[in-house]
Amino acid sequence: MTTAAPLTPPAPLETDALVIGAGPVGLFQVFELGLQGIHAQVVDALPHAGGQCVELYADKPIYDVPGLPVCSGRELIERLLQQIRPFAPDLHLGQELSVLEAQPDGRYLAATSTGTRWLARTVFIAGGVGAFQPKRLRLDGADALERRHIHPRLDGLDLQGQRVIVLGHEAPAVTTAIALAEAGLAASVTLLHRKDDFKAPPEVLARLQALRDAATLQVAVGQPLALQQDSGRLTGLDVLDPAGQTRTLAADHLLVRLGLSPRLGAIADWGLALERKLLTVDTARFETSLPGVYAVGDINHYPGKRKLLVSGFHEATLAAFAAAERVFPGQPVHLQYTTTSPKLHERLGVPTPGQD
Amino acid sequence: MTTAAPLTPPAPLETDALVIGAGPVGLFQVFELGLQGIHAQVVDALPHAGGQCVELYADKPIYDVPGLPVCSGRELIERLLQQIRPFAPDLHLGQELSVLEAQPDGRYLAATSTGTRWLARTVFIAGGVGAFQPKRLRLDGADALERRHIHPRLDGLDLQGQRVIVLGHEAPAVTTAIALAEAGLAASVTLLHRKDDFKAPPEVLARLQALRDAATLQVAVGQPLALQQDSGRLTGLDVLDPAGQTRTLAADHLLVRLGLSPRLGAIADWGLALERKLLTVDTARFETSLPGVYAVGDINHYPGKRKLLVSGFHEATLAAFAAAERVFPGQPVHLQYTTTSPKLHERLGVPTPGQD
Repeated sequence: MTTAAPLTPPAPLETDALVIGAGPVGLFQVFELGLQGIHAQVVDALPHAGGQCVELYADKPIYDVPGLPVCSGRELIERLLQQIRPFAPDLHLGQELSVLEAQPDGRYLAATSTGTRWLARTVFIAGGVGAFQPKRLRLDGADALERRHIHPRLDGLDLQGQRVIVLGHEAPAVTTAIALAEAGLAASVTLLHRKDDFKAPPEVLARLQALRDAATLQVAVGQPLALQQDSGRLTGLDVLDPAGQTRTLAADHLLVRLGLSPRLGAIADWGLALERKLLTVDTARFETSLPGVYAVGDINHYPGKRKLLVSGFHEATLAAFAAAERVFPGQPVHLQYTTTSPKLHERLGVPTPGQD
Repeated sequence: MTTAAPLTPPAPLETDALVIGAGPVGLFQVFELGLQGIHAQVVDALPHAGGQCVELYADKPIYDVPGLPVCSGRELIERLLQQIRPFAPDLHLGQELSVLEAQPDGRYLAATSTGTRWLARTVFIAGGVGAFQPKRLRLDGADALERRHIHPRLDGLDLQGQRVIVLGHEAPAVTTAIALAEAGLAASVTLLHRKDDFKAPPEVLARLQALRDAATLQVAVGQPLALQQDSGRLTGLDVLDPAGQTRTLAADHLLVRLGLSPRLGAIADWGLALERKLLTVDTARFETSLPGVYAVGDINHYPGKRKLLVSGFHEATLAAFAAAERVFPGQPVHLQYTTTSPKLHERLGVPTPGQD
């Protein structure tokens, strides 16, 4: 009997703490773990830190963070990134955690969509409303055309000589259409939205207008109704225009840039106790039904829970205390204050008054 | 039978919420109540807002408030006072809550040491480590001389022709001694501390030195050992000097300005469930054993409790949601976000984007 040598992936990285989600609560989790002397690895599906704060209210004012009378979502994230700098977490962005499996030694094997793997002593699910994913085109037959004719982004596509429709009305859609038109390789570039009303910075809108004036790029107004296909190939998109007429736009490829929407994703498959898609935790340790796996922020549930930042910060703090007991077994975890503790000052990299 | 008309005090003020303690958590309690549409009355034993943040670490850096990488105790209080400004709470400072009694209608009759009284629908004990009280002189016979010969402060005393010793080494002691000496009414003014080392702003220390140079004020170095009395009148204070010698300083009055220390005070008498001097609460509403009385911050206890600001802020938030159900019975209390809710924007006095 012969066996082909299996393709062995590299050994997983060992870590004391893996934080899933780089939103405000995930970032503060890194801070509280740092105060406990625990270094963290962080994963997020988005290509940048910030979660909802950046995706949903980057420029909107938040008034209810204690001590910050007003602060935009983006500013809060910048402040938190500054606050966690002493603890230098490893951020793994643009990848979603897909696997979480308990190991015989009490640790968890975790793996992301792009193949990063860890053996983690503790895991913190700071998943917010879920992993942000590109919104998909909900038309009959769309699933079968995905990857071949319907795409979430431009990267790596060869569209030379192709008729392309970009769907969407915000900056990502507009800049994608402009990039395609300016490259000049596609046979045609059409930007489709239900209104002739696009949201992007003024300089981007000015470039869009110039390309429209030059007929290098078309804007079509209408709602997608149906896909036209021929032998499994996309040939066009039926749209309903504002006058109530249906017409067909010829197309070989669709670039769907309709924004992001969050979904729970693989978390539902890890054997954690759930209640209406939320992870059930206790209020002393914010631990899920799996020991050493904690859930903090909008994704958890307990009696009295309110989905507020101020609560997520508290939950991350108590979860860090609980994790410290697990990471340093047999050592009592004492409360120390950042105002006075030389040990915390050392971890924060700040001087202890009167000690210099 | 004749009855003398009793001296009736003015009717108590009616309020939806009474917050005991104007430290950081008490102030944020006012904010969260304000978001719920509930106006608050606030009581504190200190003559200023801030509690421990101002008494214990006014100038010390705090590193663990989410979104504030570093912030002094005083700065945090200034930020919180700014944050609660839209809700214009009534602050009743320099008075300690002494009475809290459940009424047949479910409200609470509350009264302070200076006679302010309320009928409150909800009560929030944000008492921190307790009410800050002047430290007392612990010498045999001191209790019997208090008010007549031993005083916590200068206000209202007639010290003409009297020999006065001021005890203490921080600014309140130094400025009291300076004020007495400059008034020129006392027969003698002595500032006593165990070391010739006083802590006060440089300009205050310069005035102290000038008065010492002019022999208008004496500084004595030593530890208080015993009180000398004659027929119930104070005549002197025995002190142990640094050389180990005991000597007697002649004195008719002592002004004890040894600083403040917190004590639980009357809270222990209100029939609330206590565990090691802490108020037992649940983690969904942070309610004590009395319905409608909540405890938040360092004074409460529940499984997992850590005495941290971040937890007090969370507790105050959930207590405000619980209180809203009590103040507005039959009305569901929905979660609203300060980023998007026009109702919260109205309460905060800020514009709603896109509504102008």
